[in-house]
Amino acid sequence: MDPLDHELQNPNEIISHSAPADLSRQINGCMEHVSFPPLSRFAVCGGTHGNEMTGVYVVREMKKKNVDKVGRVSVMTVLSNPEAVHLCRRYVETDLNRCFTDALLSAPLTASSPHEMKRAHELNALLGPKGSQQAVNLLCDIHNTTANMGVCFIFYHFDWLALHIYRYVQSKISFGPVRAIQFHTPLPEAYSLESVSQNGFALEVGPQPTGVVRADIYNMTTETLDLIMEWIEKFNSGTVFEGGDVEAFSQTRALDYPRDPTTDEITAAIHPQLQDNDFKLLRAGDPIFQSFTGEAVKYEGEEAYPFFVNECAYYEKKVAFQLAQKITIRLPSISVKN
Amino acid sequence: MDPLDHELQNPNEIISHSAPADLSRQINGCMEHVSFPPLSRFAVCGGTHGNEMTGVYVVREMKKKNVDKVGRVSVMTVLSNPEAVHLCRRYVETDLNRCFTDALLSAPLTASSPHEMKRAHELNALLGPKGSQQAVNLLCDIHNTTANMGVCFIFYHFDWLALHIYRYVQSKISFGPVRAIQFHTPLPEAYSLESVSQNGFALEVGPQPTGVVRADIYNMTTETLDLIMEWIEKFNSGTVFEGGDVEAFSQTRALDYPRDPTTDEITAAIHPQLQDNDFKLLRAGDPIFQSFTGEAVKYEGEEAYPFFVNECAYYEKKVAFQLAQKITIRLPSISVKN
Repeated sequence: MDPLDHELQNPNEIISHSAPADLSRQINGCMEHVSFPPLSRFAVCGGTHGNEMTGVYVVREMKKKNVDKVGRVSVMTVLSNPEAVHLCRRYVETDLNRCFTDALLSAPLTASSPHEMKRAHELNALLGPKGSQQAVNLLCDIHNTTANMGVCFIFYHFDWLALHIYRYVQSKISFGPVRAIQFHTPLPEAYSLESVSQNGFALEVGPQPTGVVRADIYNMTTETLDLIMEWIEKFNSGTVFEGGDVEAFSQTRALDYPRDPTTDEITAAIHPQLQDNDFKLLRAGDPIFQSFTGEAVKYEGEEAYPFFVNECAYYEKKVAFQLAQKITIRLPSISVKN
Repeated sequence: MDPLDHELQNPNEIISHSAPADLSRQINGCMEHVSFPPLSRFAVCGGTHGNEMTGVYVVREMKKKNVDKVGRVSVMTVLSNPEAVHLCRRYVETDLNRCFTDALLSAPLTASSPHEMKRAHELNALLGPKGSQQAVNLLCDIHNTTANMGVCFIFYHFDWLALHIYRYVQSKISFGPVRAIQFHTPLPEAYSLESVSQNGFALEVGPQPTGVVRADIYNMTTETLDLIMEWIEKFNSGTVFEGGDVEAFSQTRALDYPRDPTTDEITAAIHPQLQDNDFKLLRAGDPIFQSFTGEAVKYEGEEAYPFFVNECAYYEKKVAFQLAQKITIRLPSISVKN
């Protein structure tokens, strides 16, 4: 079964849940049980952004140890953008993690195509092709953020398999909360590396400055990866994972910094009360920015959960923070199809 | 009187002090009272490193407000490396803050000189010339670090005037500790921007990721700057600042990360017990690194105070952290020479 069939595109599957009514919604799976073919190929990627160091060192370490198989699954370790890693920059010419849409992947390359567009075609050939049965079964792309987000599984489309992994990690992990975030992007327009795989997610871990590796963040990431591989091994061995509810954050909108209309420069920083408070409910009237002259700017809008608060790379994307609603997703039970 | 005459180059001025004997030393000033000419020109610089954002926004804000005079002192606000700021990188071709030695400033520029070397000559003409009476009286160069260092005054040579300012800020500031760090570099070899001025220091504030501005760090910096300007105003108005002791950290050595001898890549991160613990006494046997395979590496050596722990920009300089001894400096009283 193509797991993409399970995408929750049907608004009828989203029903109002508990208070606050507009924030907590429940998504019911249509089915009681889903089976998938064995997961034979798992890809672990790092350095998709060349200055997010955890993935770089995790992948290098796995390569050193020649990790190429865990149980019955073959493991590919991929340093996604070695040139950007060498420069310790997010990218050389353009953001690699925005290059994997169907449109961009199907456009012919030319000599003047940006470095990252060429690399995206290579990665699509290696790990995809996107949307095909030849693509790796599962892809985990390791990212870091300067925001205080802990460990987050980021999905651009929901699939039961990845959500079951998230739920397993959440129940087993030794440290603070593990969260899931959904961005609403149909697969053809999904622009990030994991979209080339059959099932996949970005693992976003922070806070960590760009260009820096912190042992605490590294340890959280390797523990998460170990649990993911433990889950795959159990799944392939025939374990039935029971259905049930998981909580996730469904992205609703992004807010930019206040800017000078002439120069386009930002005129305020994230307010100290919001800084480092990702996933803490934001209410109308709460301060969100502090202008460089000292005035507080207050939040106007519906109650929502902020995340990616003061992420370094989003200044240029004009995002000061993202907002989400909290949702509950009812998972079917899942097992391997023999 | 040329304040540079007061440099503490004489080892006889350093005497052993309190326990631990090798860490806490006392430096006695040779004189009871020192007077300086009025401070007529004060320079505030930011963006010497283009991705250390606090100085960039502080300087831009002062320029917007047309801050050019405080009391009797003229204030120059300088964005040191606008091209690097534009790129949001530490530097374009080479580290600007290593370009201000006598040797580099006296070498002729050529068309192929690095961008920063050309800029160093411009800044030396604007704010110096280094070692001359035409140089600005006082220069504060604002920097950020990813290390948990709070507010630090960094001196490459001690002068009573800058140390009195440090002591004043320390006594008045509303937040946590303010510290002073001394690097031992004779003025001709001093390579940093503030060395072009008659008196000067780098203001190092953290932790803040590169490319990010945090309101808490911004607020600490502007409060410090306000106190510096308050001190200058008092000094120029005839206030006598009494002598007394100040504590400082005297840099002794730098430690690199463990590295793979073949690839030169780091093989360990700062240990979680050392991370964020700048200025906490380090003893032999304390863990300092955690290898990417999970083993702790322990500190060997004399008790010392670590700082610049896991500073982003020092990976390329092969510095995992710096070590210091704690010293006590006895300041003479100080006043303006009329």
